[in-house]
Amino acid sequence: MSLEKTLSQIDSSLPESLDRLFDLLRIPSISTDPAHIADCDRAADWMVDTLAELGFDAEKRPTTGHPMVTGSAGNGGIHLMFYGHYDVQPVDPLELWNNPPFEPAVQDTPKGEVIRACGANDDKGQLMTFIEALRAWKAVNGSLPGRISVFFEGEEESGSPSLVPFLKEHTKELSQPDIVLICDTSMFNPETPAITTMLRGLLGEELTITGPDKDLHSGYYGGIAMNPARVLSRIIAALHDDQGRITVPGFYDGVPELTNSLRAQWDALGFDEAAFLGEVGQSIPAGEAGRSGLEMIWSRPTCEVNGLWSGYTGEGFKTVLPSQASAKISFRLVGTQDPLAIRKSFRAMVESMLPGDCTVSFKNHGAAPASVMATDHPAFEAARQALSEEWPRPAAFIGAGGSIPIAGYFKEILGLDSMLIGFGRDDDQLHSPNEKYDLESFHKGIRSWARILDALYS
Amino acid sequence: MSLEKTLSQIDSSLPESLDRLFDLLRIPSISTDPAHIADCDRAADWMVDTLAELGFDAEKRPTTGHPMVTGSAGNGGIHLMFYGHYDVQPVDPLELWNNPPFEPAVQDTPKGEVIRACGANDDKGQLMTFIEALRAWKAVNGSLPGRISVFFEGEEESGSPSLVPFLKEHTKELSQPDIVLICDTSMFNPETPAITTMLRGLLGEELTITGPDKDLHSGYYGGIAMNPARVLSRIIAALHDDQGRITVPGFYDGVPELTNSLRAQWDALGFDEAAFLGEVGQSIPAGEAGRSGLEMIWSRPTCEVNGLWSGYTGEGFKTVLPSQASAKISFRLVGTQDPLAIRKSFRAMVESMLPGDCTVSFKNHGAAPASVMATDHPAFEAARQALSEEWPRPAAFIGAGGSIPIAGYFKEILGLDSMLIGFGRDDDQLHSPNEKYDLESFHKGIRSWARILDALYS
Repeated sequence: MSLEKTLSQIDSSLPESLDRLFDLLRIPSISTDPAHIADCDRAADWMVDTLAELGFDAEKRPTTGHPMVTGSAGNGGIHLMFYGHYDVQPVDPLELWNNPPFEPAVQDTPKGEVIRACGANDDKGQLMTFIEALRAWKAVNGSLPGRISVFFEGEEESGSPSLVPFLKEHTKELSQPDIVLICDTSMFNPETPAITTMLRGLLGEELTITGPDKDLHSGYYGGIAMNPARVLSRIIAALHDDQGRITVPGFYDGVPELTNSLRAQWDALGFDEAAFLGEVGQSIPAGEAGRSGLEMIWSRPTCEVNGLWSGYTGEGFKTVLPSQASAKISFRLVGTQDPLAIRKSFRAMVESMLPGDCTVSFKNHGAAPASVMATDHPAFEAARQALSEEWPRPAAFIGAGGSIPIAGYFKEILGLDSMLIGFGRDDDQLHSPNEKYDLESFHKGIRSWARILDALYS
Repeated sequence: MSLEKTLSQIDSSLPESLDRLFDLLRIPSISTDPAHIADCDRAADWMVDTLAELGFDAEKRPTTGHPMVTGSAGNGGIHLMFYGHYDVQPVDPLELWNNPPFEPAVQDTPKGEVIRACGANDDKGQLMTFIEALRAWKAVNGSLPGRISVFFEGEEESGSPSLVPFLKEHTKELSQPDIVLICDTSMFNPETPAITTMLRGLLGEELTITGPDKDLHSGYYGGIAMNPARVLSRIIAALHDDQGRITVPGFYDGVPELTNSLRAQWDALGFDEAAFLGEVGQSIPAGEAGRSGLEMIWSRPTCEVNGLWSGYTGEGFKTVLPSQASAKISFRLVGTQDPLAIRKSFRAMVESMLPGDCTVSFKNHGAAPASVMATDHPAFEAARQALSEEWPRPAAFIGAGGSIPIAGYFKEILGLDSMLIGFGRDDDQLHSPNEKYDLESFHKGIRSWARILDALYS
């Protein structure tokens, strides 16, 4: 029953865990601001010292930017690598903070006690859930449960410029672990934990259609010269059929159906489509007919117009027949959809729809495939069950509509799947004044990791 | 044979006619520039003096802006009213003028002699063709051919702010004539004179479609929230069918077919569609299938997108799912198409295509019906034949793709049809540095008016 003892230890030492988190939160490690270079360095040192206390051979590793912190400890069993970041966002506008952002405090709110500070969630509070779980484990058992590596960066909030070079330079060392744990995401809702296992990819395209070689007067040329805005509209309109399916030839190659198990998990989440859409003034899901709301945002690919422009867009009216019309269009990708094949097919489709007198030029705005974790690795199901023990409702493998680049890099460069497990809530105000992390997120987050470690190493 | 004598008089007194035109051209009557208020007044005085010499009871009539000049003379026959404007455009950028803009000169060019000055064509050269025809007529015959009124304004190049109020205030006086002559247009080509008898109308609409009530992240909401740019594109795409016809219900009500006589005239013009389109980098007429190029720009209605915008349109890429998408759309109208009925039908069509979650708002950017002159008035055919006598190729009744507001006001407020007859060429560089008027335009323009006066009063 060492797990029960570890959980008790976590409960009883929560005040000290909070003290340590507050120490870290007091360091203004704002990575984008050169005035805070020394603070970032201090936060890295703090991480090294903390890891050393737990028996890690921790090191601060120089980069051209802020340092990485790495370390390993323990022996045997599955080899985990835990990722987090010790840097935080800038705090402007400072006047909107009710308390100084780097003077953390526990505050009562109608929804319960919260830890208020810059980084309370993102990512200092989240990463400390794992560290404090290790500390409690070691206190009860005398050693860590097995071989564990850590990898902390200090540039996540400024675009991680040193990350890919570092991963590439140290691939051999960093690819040793079996799986990565990332604690930088949210729960599905305050009662339902989640492991994010599907991240949609992104293909970005910009196209400009040229008709006449200059802007024309629509009185003289209207009706005889081709209007590129009309051509562009026809192309965009043709990208979806009347069932909401995307018509680019071959687009659905590599789009998997949900497994029965995943479908059951998602059904059990009780996703409130009306509430989700209601928050943005909508009520009717706009995706493919016959697909659930969660499929639309997690497991189905999309095609969205992100920008559109042609002709005169100012006040009043100008009877111009524009020479050009442009659009920025993005495709969210899932499964094994091939972004480069889709780009080629999309461009061919556009070209096939051009009237004889028009030309098109394209700009490439990125092409990243989806990240789909190999959830048949037993660690995923073990972690899911462990999380389900801790929280009121069962955990689920979920998707994320947006992309989380770090998981893609670990997969691409190190060949490692990631389990994204976090304890944030939607109202944590990340990257905003008065960021918070619920005391329950912190406390039960630590307990969750203890349960996961117990499950993975038992 | 008094016409032959008048034509001879015109030929022999051309140097004096030019001198008088140069006097007028030397007055920098730039109507938009307050620094030239006195010059505009001087030009008006010059017009009054010139008309008085010819026996007109000419008057300078005050307005809140620059004065109008009116006058009547002669007796009997059809009562003509001649319209022109004595003001000119600003001359910026001055450094692009090869000669000072208000120091007129006759210059040799590879295409023949030209009068170079600001206003050489627009409209001082053009209006003086009529004045000099009257002067020659009077010199030969001792009096004018019949009752003739003149109406000159000094604000045409600054939007004619005083014109409509003046016409409304003096409707009884100004609606006495039978028909208006306007000399402010071009020939069909240097060999072919034309009377513009059809001016397309214009309906301007702006629509904004709103989907989500704020801009969204296309990662989180892409695929489930309706993208208004997709809705707008579908609507614009549906405005034309695959034959290039406009699909707004009832749109073609009031669109007449060409009469056989007009079709024969237009066919005889030998319009070079390839050259016309080639000048703007196009080669394929984009209008309704089965219509000639001239029909597309003169006698068929159009629907053009003049502006289009949604989401992020700057450099790079932003994965926004926009809240709104907007377009400015104009319809050129012909025949008796009713702009207000079309506005109503267009808006109903847009609303019928909106998905349940989207709303639309409209802005009104003007609604003017087409001007179609009553060419069955015998003056039209008489003038056409008179022009055909003067020039190498027969004259035609033609259309104009753009609108010429003054003709609409005369029709609407005074109930008068206009014959738009001008002698400009496409390369006259109106509103630009080095504006010119061919000496042939001036000389044969004067002769043309003499022939027209002879035809109308014989």
